[in-house]
Amino acid sequence: MTIHEVKTIQKEGMMLEANMPDGKIVLDVPESEGGSGKGMKPKQLMLAAMEGCTAMDVVSLLKKMKIDYSYFEVKAKAVLSEEHPRHYTEVKLQYIFKGDNLKKEKIERAVELSFDKYCGVIYMFKQFAKVEYVIEYMN
Amino acid sequence: MTIHEVKTIQKEGMMLEANMPDGKIVLDVPESEGGSGKGMKPKQLMLAAMEGCTAMDVVSLLKKMKIDYSYFEVKAKAVLSEEHPRHYTEVKLQYIFKGDNLKKEKIERAVELSFDKYCGVIYMFKQFAKVEYVIEYMN
Repeated sequence: MTIHEVKTIQKEGMMLEANMPDGKIVLDVPESEGGSGKGMKPKQLMLAAMEGCTAMDVVSLLKKMKIDYSYFEVKAKAVLSEEHPRHYTEVKLQYIFKGDNLKKEKIERAVELSFDKYCGVIYMFKQFAKVEYVIEYMN
Repeated sequence: MTIHEVKTIQKEGMMLEANMPDGKIVLDVPESEGGSGKGMKPKQLMLAAMEGCTAMDVVSLLKKMKIDYSYFEVKAKAVLSEEHPRHYTEVKLQYIFKGDNLKKEKIERAVELSFDKYCGVIYMFKQFAKVEYVIEYMN
């Protein structure tokens, strides 16, 4: 059985320190909500989790397929519900690639495999939100 | 409509940089899986998100209730599924308080309000995992 453990400690006011096995993250709320505005917002970490999870799948698959590219990023735009508890209701992922003579068919296959089959974070998001993606190519 | 945007860029190999509005996080996989082992693991960010979200609720509620304590942390232990896509199936949250003459009834009410009503990340987790909590007091 695989178990993940994370611990978050209150530092001062709304400022918190999340202790992960591989590093620390400072969390806080904006000054307008009584925080220092110098920490990250908890919910947005979920978007970073999703991007990281699917990007690692895609990098790994494209390496196995021996597909070259010069740049790769994943962007997420997520809509937060107005009603409480506020949660993400829709997420649009953009997979952006740069490079010469990109093998688009292989790239699309790699993204599709991550999106439909491999990425556990996308799988979790699909249980509460509408998740969609597009692939974009830049020179 | 509230929209959150996060962007993750591939740096080198499996090492990624997640760009949040309030900071950056380096993500990577362990050396055994072909990474540097110097970055955080994407899925674990979801646990930090959950702890941060509920801890902020509790801090804010206890402040409103004028409840004193000297230390507060939230720990998560999460079970990852063996089948793919690997996702969290169970999460146990521990809310740990230290202090003299803690007002346990008020603390329990604050945690319950966050767990049942206010915390959007817990709400999202409940859509795919069994989530439970305990409260512990230390001197």
